[in-house]
Amino acid sequence: MCALSRRDFVHTTALGTIAMIRTPLGPNGPQDQGWKQLRINGDRLNKHLVNLSQFGRIPEGGVNRIAFSPADIEGRGFTMQLMRDAQLEVHIDPAGNIIGRREGHLPDLPPILFGSHIDSVPEGGNYDGDLGTMAAIETAQSLAEAGYQNRHPLEVIVWCDEEGGLTGSRAITGILPEEELTDLGRDGVSLREKIRRIGGDPDRIADAKRERGEVAAYLELHVEQGRILYDQGIQVGVVEGIVGIHQYDVTIEGFANHAGTTPMNIRKNAMLTAAEIVLTVDRVVKSKPGRQVGTVGRLTLEPGAPNVVPGLVSLTVELRDLDSAKIGALWAEIHTEIDQLAEKYGTPTHYERARTNDPALSDPQIRELIAAAADDLGLSSLHMPSGAGHDAQTLAMICPVGMIFVPSVEGISHSPREFTEPEDVVNGGNVLLQTIVRLDRA
Amino acid sequence: MCALSRRDFVHTTALGTIAMIRTPLGPNGPQDQGWKQLRINGDRLNKHLVNLSQFGRIPEGGVNRIAFSPADIEGRGFTMQLMRDAQLEVHIDPAGNIIGRREGHLPDLPPILFGSHIDSVPEGGNYDGDLGTMAAIETAQSLAEAGYQNRHPLEVIVWCDEEGGLTGSRAITGILPEEELTDLGRDGVSLREKIRRIGGDPDRIADAKRERGEVAAYLELHVEQGRILYDQGIQVGVVEGIVGIHQYDVTIEGFANHAGTTPMNIRKNAMLTAAEIVLTVDRVVKSKPGRQVGTVGRLTLEPGAPNVVPGLVSLTVELRDLDSAKIGALWAEIHTEIDQLAEKYGTPTHYERARTNDPALSDPQIRELIAAAADDLGLSSLHMPSGAGHDAQTLAMICPVGMIFVPSVEGISHSPREFTEPEDVVNGGNVLLQTIVRLDRA
Repeated sequence: MCALSRRDFVHTTALGTIAMIRTPLGPNGPQDQGWKQLRINGDRLNKHLVNLSQFGRIPEGGVNRIAFSPADIEGRGFTMQLMRDAQLEVHIDPAGNIIGRREGHLPDLPPILFGSHIDSVPEGGNYDGDLGTMAAIETAQSLAEAGYQNRHPLEVIVWCDEEGGLTGSRAITGILPEEELTDLGRDGVSLREKIRRIGGDPDRIADAKRERGEVAAYLELHVEQGRILYDQGIQVGVVEGIVGIHQYDVTIEGFANHAGTTPMNIRKNAMLTAAEIVLTVDRVVKSKPGRQVGTVGRLTLEPGAPNVVPGLVSLTVELRDLDSAKIGALWAEIHTEIDQLAEKYGTPTHYERARTNDPALSDPQIRELIAAAADDLGLSSLHMPSGAGHDAQTLAMICPVGMIFVPSVEGISHSPREFTEPEDVVNGGNVLLQTIVRLDRA
Repeated sequence: MCALSRRDFVHTTALGTIAMIRTPLGPNGPQDQGWKQLRINGDRLNKHLVNLSQFGRIPEGGVNRIAFSPADIEGRGFTMQLMRDAQLEVHIDPAGNIIGRREGHLPDLPPILFGSHIDSVPEGGNYDGDLGTMAAIETAQSLAEAGYQNRHPLEVIVWCDEEGGLTGSRAITGILPEEELTDLGRDGVSLREKIRRIGGDPDRIADAKRERGEVAAYLELHVEQGRILYDQGIQVGVVEGIVGIHQYDVTIEGFANHAGTTPMNIRKNAMLTAAEIVLTVDRVVKSKPGRQVGTVGRLTLEPGAPNVVPGLVSLTVELRDLDSAKIGALWAEIHTEIDQLAEKYGTPTHYERARTNDPALSDPQIRELIAAAADDLGLSSLHMPSGAGHDAQTLAMICPVGMIFVPSVEGISHSPREFTEPEDVVNGGNVLLQTIVRLDRA
């Protein structure tokens, strides 16, 4: 789907230059359109993805590359070598993020950041994070090979511990609480110690912080992790923003009793209330126009035996939307109904907000640049929210951000079955490259 | 509430005889009503219950006296001594049941069996099983002390492993499958080995079997384990039968997907189907007149994270009633609705029968004897089903059975908080004694 076939690419880059580029690639004014012909090396990008997938490989074909694990550390070593091959100057910041810098020729401009992560969820796939990271390095390498003279410094960044809670990006924006560094995790090891293991310097973590104005923009390519693009056959998603997430823990108190000896009319069955809540969340969320989602994905009941009336149910209601006010209105409607259900079933019900991520909108100008890049590449695109969280949502606190999505086959993610077609990998890399160049020249 | 005050009892039994009994206590014809004055020693019975509660005692006040555990074996030792004190001839049958026999003076009559169990559920209470066992021994002791001449042999029986699955009573009726003896339990020990540990002889287990006609009747006193008697302030329950139990395991297949990236309208959310099933079971069971009960007490969902659409739900529907046909009709209605829900939500749903206990009706004549005994003792009584399972349901395969219930405070059972008032303990013991004598004379 890209302007050059993949075979052309391999051939031309083997010659150390890019075919069809006739003018120097510096920012020589609006009349110089040579940069528009810049393309990544798609075969190399797909090969790097395959190579990275060997670190933490599991029999099912995906990876166990949990942040700070040996597989993660080995994968970081491999990634740093690729960055050096791409002529980037590589260092690990105090928070454990890997940064590869290419200086710009206007030294006073703030850097453009772009990248992703290589850590995975347990039994994760080979595209979530990996694609954005390898494509960012490929972009840098293609620019270097083409002799592109960037005005801004370019920084390829590999975030530390994205899946564990956006650790690296929260450190860079200064919102990682000290107690998170100190508390011992389930494995008995503190985050402080883990950051040290991967070459960070937790005692100097404040030095990793970037202030507003110190970063020109942040851009990230990612697989959609949903099936909107896949189902609609669209090649590129222009992310409007990362949805806010509100989670509420709900506890329903019934009374556990013998299911044989307790007549129906005197039961306090917490599971009946819970079942109605599950259906209420679905009904209320679907009753409004828009792309909000609402889910009860966690539900446990006690004691949980077939012959005992459930005495206690605990569940989590999760609501997501790009608009915080809309989430608030949905929850107001849901919790009013929950109160009525608690009354109806005689099962006192409590709730507390367990987690709040505010929505993070992407920068409208960057959206336009992404859409224009896709358009120039002959790729179809769609403006859409990101239902999943990403480091970009944290970066949005200090700089304009943008995200590019490519399709996930069948929308499968966080699974060894996660897959993105090699063609879509190349498309994403080219949109990233072209958007970086446009940002640099903007 | 009994005809003599408790103080009178202690006094009179200390003299080795029963006050107010003026004629010999043999079955000297219908004109001899002396046996009607027979009473148990209520203080002694309550004291024995307290003493038994020390074996396997837990800090919360109940017991961990799982069958075959050291606490169970110690408790059995204590119980066998009480049986010998009650002038019973004690042996352990090949299945591990403790049997204490008092010969009758008409040697050709089959024995009347009565008793219960002393094993408990994990963190159980001090009345479930214990009451019936101690009251049976107390009955034997009171009869011995009063010089009562029984026609039938009387056998006090302490069932092996009631809570683990009516093991001892299934052995006596010949329905304990060989593979249950051989299979290794979760603890890696076979039932065969466990029965050996408590003095049984699993190689000769067939010898424990009693044929139809070899037992005159089986009678058991038990705490209700529900709150019908407690709520209505009634002293004695005349059990009409032990309800049948049908359990169906239901599996609902949705598709696990990212709760942020999967639009509401393309989800296959197994939990929505499950919630409707939970409410359907409750609605259908309540829609018919009668005392049937229906419960979803077990429900698990996968993967069970707040941010993942539930992909798989597994739950158990349990239905109980005295009438198998009624259970069948309820399930037919429920599974028709389940099929419709599976269709509605696009979540294929499978079910299989996981357990079937047929209802076991008590003998109408024994019911009458129990009610008459209660009446003569000045106790209020109510005919009612047993919603819980008991060894009596197995015995019903080979002989007429009867069960006597006394109130459980607040209906609490299988809990350290299980409690029955000492007065109700004494009432139950007296109804047991009076019913045994009536059975013997019938």
